[in-house]
Parts: sequence; structure tokens; C-alpha cells
Amino acid sequence: MQTKKPLSLLKVYQLIEPGPVVMLTTAYKGKQNIMTMAWLTMIGFKPPLIACVLGKKKYSFAALKKTKECVINIPTVELIETVMGVGNTTGSEIDKFKKFELTPEPATLVDAPIIKECYASLECKVVDTKMVSKYNMFILEVVKAWITPRKKRARTIHHIGSGVFVVDGEIIKARFKKK
Amino acid sequence: MQTKKPLSLLKVYQLIEPGPVVMLTTAYKGKQNIMTMAWLTMIGFKPPLIACVLGKKKYSFAALKKTKECVINIPTVELIETVMGVGNTTGSEIDKFKKFELTPEPATLVDAPIIKECYASLECKVVDTKMVSKYNMFILEVVKAWITPRKKRARTIHHIGSGVFVVDGEIIKARFKKK
Repeated sequence: MQTKKPLSLLKVYQLIEPGPVVMLTTAYKGKQNIMTMAWLTMIGFKPPLIACVLGKKKYSFAALKKTKECVINIPTVELIETVMGVGNTTGSEIDKFKKFELTPEPATLVDAPIIKECYASLECKVVDTKMVSKYNMFILEVVKAWITPRKKRARTIHHIGSGVFVVDGEIIKARFKKK
Repeated sequence: MQTKKPLSLLKVYQLIEPGPVVMLTTAYKGKQNIMTMAWLTMIGFKPPLIACVLGKKKYSFAALKKTKECVINIPTVELIETVMGVGNTTGSEIDKFKKFELTPEPATLVDAPIIKECYASLECKVVDTKMVSKYNMFILEVVKAWITPRKKRARTIHHIGSGVFVVDGEIIKARFKKK
């Protein structure tokens, strides 16, 4: 007997999505831009490969497709309103760095900027575009990674739908008991 | 000036991976099996599509490739040691349902079992295998979803490397201020 209740298929993303929300930056035709993104996953360790999905109509989509470079910046909970704002505006109309008072810093191996206010930043190059036309999915290789040293792990945020986020809580080391 | 410090490329996954850890079930040649998985992301809303990566040597890899069906079961923090145990054993040697005292329940649209003890379960069919040979990546369509009704949101766990997990903390509704 199934003891659970049906869940709308349209709510499935609220269960799966909660990886860390990130802000992806690009630089294209002299314009630096930022988008908020939650659809990404590791797909390889060495070199680190990331699969990510960007809406086809996003201003960043064209920039990523053309330049094949980006930076994935990881914000902490302190930036939650900025993350929302960046996600609810388009770079076709505004300069998001200015509007949201974020500071672009030069990356080392890509032209896309690092966001100073984010606690970690990953410089990435697009290494596979075969899934772009069907799924809007890019395969990125992280070519350089940056992190702000901290005593405690930074608290990232995980989107659970409709502008609601769950913040990192306690950290647990799981014991694996060989029986 | 870059104010951050370099991070080992091998630790990048600790930043990106923290989506909810799940347990994927399969049924193949009369054997039900479970694996722990953290590399997955939504890639489509309607129908809900999930991209996930399974190690090629995993017992579940062959089962998923052959049967094209699975269930993604989402555990809460109470199951953390089970999740670790399932992730550190292989179905080629043991019956994980028995070993870890998990209860298989029949799903409705796939032969793979639902794990009763998980708070949500997604019945999935493989709809694209083009990325399997290169990236071990399957595209799944969620065809039926189940959730245990609760007053509070269930606390899922997010793997941050080496058997360490961060547990869901507070929930925040972000305000988007149109300026």
C-alpha cells in the first residue's frame, strides 16, 4: 500500500532543485552581465565538469553561447535579496552590477567577471554544446576556482520555489557502520 | 585585485554538488536495488525532466540502462546513516533493502520500487540516453510523484564531500524590491 499522496508534477522541481543557487556572469560585446541560476549539477570530478541549463530567452544565454566562457559565483544568505533581484531583471535593459551594487573583478582565464561579494567563484569554459539546442544545457569545465577563507562553512541558499529559499543548517558527519 | 584564494579543482564539487541527496531504486532481473546519488538537476519543468549521472561501474547503472525505469526517493536527515550505508555498499553483493531495513513499495508506472521510509518518491522513465556513453548522464522524465504530507518542510541533506552533509536550516521568503 502506498502511504504517500500524489504530488503535482509541476511541483517536482521543488524537491530536486535545491542545490546552491548561483549567479552566472558573462562578458559579451563589452557588457558584463549576471543571471541567477539553480539548474546545475556536477557531472565529472577531474577535470570538474558542470552541466547547467539556462533559459533560451535569457540575455546570458546568447552571451554564453557566443563567448563560451562564464564565471559561476556562489552567494551566501546575506545576498538573498540581491539574488532575487538579479533573477527578476534582465541584462538587456539594465547594468545589473550597478543596479545591485555588485563589484566585478577580473578573472584569470576567462573574460567574464568574478563577483567580489560572492564567497566563491568558478571560472568556466564551455566544452560541449551538443545539448544546447534540445535542452538549453551547456557542459562547463571549471578551469580555476576561488574561495574566500572562512572559519565556518559559508551558508548557501537553495531555492525551493516561488522565491522561497532554504538556508544551510547544521553540518553532520555521517557515520558508516560496516555491519 | 582578486581577494579570494585559489581552491583545488578537486574540491569544486563540494561547492556545486549540494542538491538534495537522493536514493535511486531500480528493478532488474528480479532484483530490487538502491543507490545513493547527488549528481542530478532539473532540466525541464513541463514535463519535469531530470538529468542525473551514475558511475558506470555502479550496479544500478546497468539496471537503469536496461530497464529505462527508476524511482528517485528523497530521504530526510533521520536517514543519514542509511544514505551513507547505501552509498558505500554494492547491490552486486547484498540486498540493500534487507541490509538497511528499508521497505520497498510498488510504484504505479514503473517496476522500480518506492522506498517507504523516504518522504518523497518520483517515478521516472529514461527518455534520452544520448549522453550516457560520454557523461554517464541519463535524462529522466518524472511520470508520477509522491510526497508524505507534513506540516513543516522535510529536512533534506546535501552532501558537501567525504561523508559530510549540510542539513536544511531556516526557510526564508526573499523580497524582491523593484527599485
